[in-house]
Amino acid sequence: MLRKIDHIGIAVHSVEEVKSFFLKIFDLKPVFEESVQDQQVKVVGFKLGESNIEFLEPTSPESPVAKFLEKRGQGMHHLSVEVQDIEQTIATLKSQRIQLIDEKAKIGAEGKKIAFLHPKSTFGILLELSQKI
Amino acid sequence: MLRKIDHIGIAVHSVEEVKSFFLKIFDLKPVFEESVQDQQVKVVGFKLGESNIEFLEPTSPESPVAKFLEKRGQGMHHLSVEVQDIEQTIATLKSQRIQLIDEKAKIGAEGKKIAFLHPKSTFGILLELSQKI
Repeated sequence: MLRKIDHIGIAVHSVEEVKSFFLKIFDLKPVFEESVQDQQVKVVGFKLGESNIEFLEPTSPESPVAKFLEKRGQGMHHLSVEVQDIEQTIATLKSQRIQLIDEKAKIGAEGKKIAFLHPKSTFGILLELSQKI
Repeated sequence: MLRKIDHIGIAVHSVEEVKSFFLKIFDLKPVFEESVQDQQVKVVGFKLGESNIEFLEPTSPESPVAKFLEKRGQGMHHLSVEVQDIEQTIATLKSQRIQLIDEKAKIGAEGKKIAFLHPKSTFGILLELSQKI
């Protein structure tokens, strides 16, 4: 049911700073860069084995990531896990009374189906389910 | 140089609660359980693709994880990345004036060589380098 870590999302002030760091230290370039309107963030992703590490910079003070930065500073923001069948996983979680942020899957970065669980139900982790289409 | 995510470490109050959750919701059992004296934690690890998710419960109020829980509550604590040659990576980081917690590799869980970087140098992430022996 859980296949792999899809990505880890990290909240940062500047994705440009991250790009310079990875290039200088590890000679590593991002595999993608995009803006996600829904979350009001710029995203820069680096490939690490079968997973990505994604850095999120808010593009507006209203972005959830801007609020996270204000409260906690830079650092790990969410964990995304690839599942085989997101609708089935959501149904299972609901039947077990796990608190969801998204009761239905929506479309996220790279066109994947995603849904967030509430950290209260998942040991303080903001957990994203993700399914390739 | 960076091979894959070795594991994500998550600070929790009770690893027993985590075990019940994973069994009930995902029918998943831990791949290992151990105590790490150095960090004063009990660790329960679940396999997720090529990476592990590790839950850390402090066994003493002096544990760094106990202090993390007190300050920030349950949640993602550190990110461990597998490198090919930890001594070489440490040398590169030093030459770039990246702040390290461990100037020399030490032995961590599962007998791996590990070293922590300081979150100030790595966008708020407590980053662990890890090398299989």
